[in-house]
Amino acid sequence: MHTEKLISEIKRKQSFLCIGLDVDLSKIPTHLLKLASPIFEFNKAIIDATHHLCVAYKPNIAFYEAYGQEGWDALKLTIDYLNSNYPEIFTIADAKRGDIGNTSRMYAKAFFEDLGFDSITTAPYMGKDSIEPFLEFENKHTILLALTSNPGAFDFQTIKSKEKPLYQSVLQTSKSWKNSKNLMYVVGATKAEYFKAIRAIVPNSFLLVPGVGAQGGSLEDVCAYGLNSDVGLLVNSSRGIIYASNATDFAEQAAQKAENLQQQMKAILSKKLNANLI
Amino acid sequence: MHTEKLISEIKRKQSFLCIGLDVDLSKIPTHLLKLASPIFEFNKAIIDATHHLCVAYKPNIAFYEAYGQEGWDALKLTIDYLNSNYPEIFTIADAKRGDIGNTSRMYAKAFFEDLGFDSITTAPYMGKDSIEPFLEFENKHTILLALTSNPGAFDFQTIKSKEKPLYQSVLQTSKSWKNSKNLMYVVGATKAEYFKAIRAIVPNSFLLVPGVGAQGGSLEDVCAYGLNSDVGLLVNSSRGIIYASNATDFAEQAAQKAENLQQQMKAILSKKLNANLI
Repeated sequence: MHTEKLISEIKRKQSFLCIGLDVDLSKIPTHLLKLASPIFEFNKAIIDATHHLCVAYKPNIAFYEAYGQEGWDALKLTIDYLNSNYPEIFTIADAKRGDIGNTSRMYAKAFFEDLGFDSITTAPYMGKDSIEPFLEFENKHTILLALTSNPGAFDFQTIKSKEKPLYQSVLQTSKSWKNSKNLMYVVGATKAEYFKAIRAIVPNSFLLVPGVGAQGGSLEDVCAYGLNSDVGLLVNSSRGIIYASNATDFAEQAAQKAENLQQQMKAILSKKLNANLI
Repeated sequence: MHTEKLISEIKRKQSFLCIGLDVDLSKIPTHLLKLASPIFEFNKAIIDATHHLCVAYKPNIAFYEAYGQEGWDALKLTIDYLNSNYPEIFTIADAKRGDIGNTSRMYAKAFFEDLGFDSITTAPYMGKDSIEPFLEFENKHTILLALTSNPGAFDFQTIKSKEKPLYQSVLQTSKSWKNSKNLMYVVGATKAEYFKAIRAIVPNSFLLVPGVGAQGGSLEDVCAYGLNSDVGLLVNSSRGIIYASNATDFAEQAAQKAENLQQQMKAILSKKLNANLI
């Protein structure tokens, strides 16, 4: 998907919500377990109930790999369903991949070509030649981990060298990589106070923001510093939406939670629009 | 597998060779393409021909994911074949995973429990709580990226802070993580001059060493500083062994390449043994 299309969908829907599809068989309604592919049926119901409230879905690949071939089948069914029925939706393979060049090329092929995702999350530790193979794909996006939402983020990402923490080196250095226009960045909502410094380095890039909801991040704080004139944010919620209920009304309850967030986003966007900021 | 068992196998076989199973359908002998699972048939032939010369196999997960469900099937068939027929072999899922805690737990479940690998490679960027879920598994090993073999390694891994490069912080910090006895580390063979500093921080840990062969690293250089009294090295070669030939004799040719490396390892081990160093 072209970035322009993503931006126009955000404006049309008044939402920059991304819904994480982290499907755990122990948490989904038990009536689905009798069906041929419970994971896909769960996703399908969630997607049908929420697609008008969000602009992106983010299956977390670990949750599919944990179920082996059955999980992989469900992932394929899910992405095919999204691409066939809701082509206006931006799809994110949350995979945190990154390896030597020829291996990253295989991951890019797997997620961009074979599965048909619009984007993938990647880890920066192995540097330039581990990410550039992903960036070669036209209209595909590579979402690089910058500052993550978990406690361990402070182990290495904030180590300072010459007054600059590592995550800032990651942001700065990645801008020099070939096809860096295809980069977006993961920045955790639990670290809203860092957004100002991050926006100083990557003012125009999209930021994928996990950590709102279950992990405790605040939407208002993230928007205060993170929004740019293209909106430039995709705020993800996974557990807070998809596990709103595990009864037969789970999809409606999920839609309710998604709508709560979408309404907050709409209010924030209206304020910005009125102030001519977007 | 218990580390003691790995060490005794290394001593018995006089080999610390790991063979990378990075199977690319465009590179394997064409007569295999007619079979039901060409990737598995290729792996099976390579394993049958080389298992007495090496102590570990390392399927590179990207190469399996690139073939979707067919690839995932082949991976499952391969690990099942190894576990059933060669239980003395140490198996490594080269996956470079790492995510927030509940997600890393799903990856650990996928690779340790469902697939049954002895170990997995992981990326440190997200810190402690992204790795500890892997370390909880008894007799399973987590091989953390420290200093990798690719050019991009110098983008971030060698950034210095208070005179200490990042990869040394990764080594040092990871030792404080819970169950850190289950850690091993990836250290590229292309960086042999760094082994001395690395051994000063992790004298007793096993190091998985890619980069010998296709990437240009030297076995002698790696052994000069990397060997410890338990041997403590697993040296990987992938393309240099498995693609020695793409004719019908591919497995014999692979065995020949593996034997060349094993003989070099045996000579190095004998010298150390004679000097009472192992």
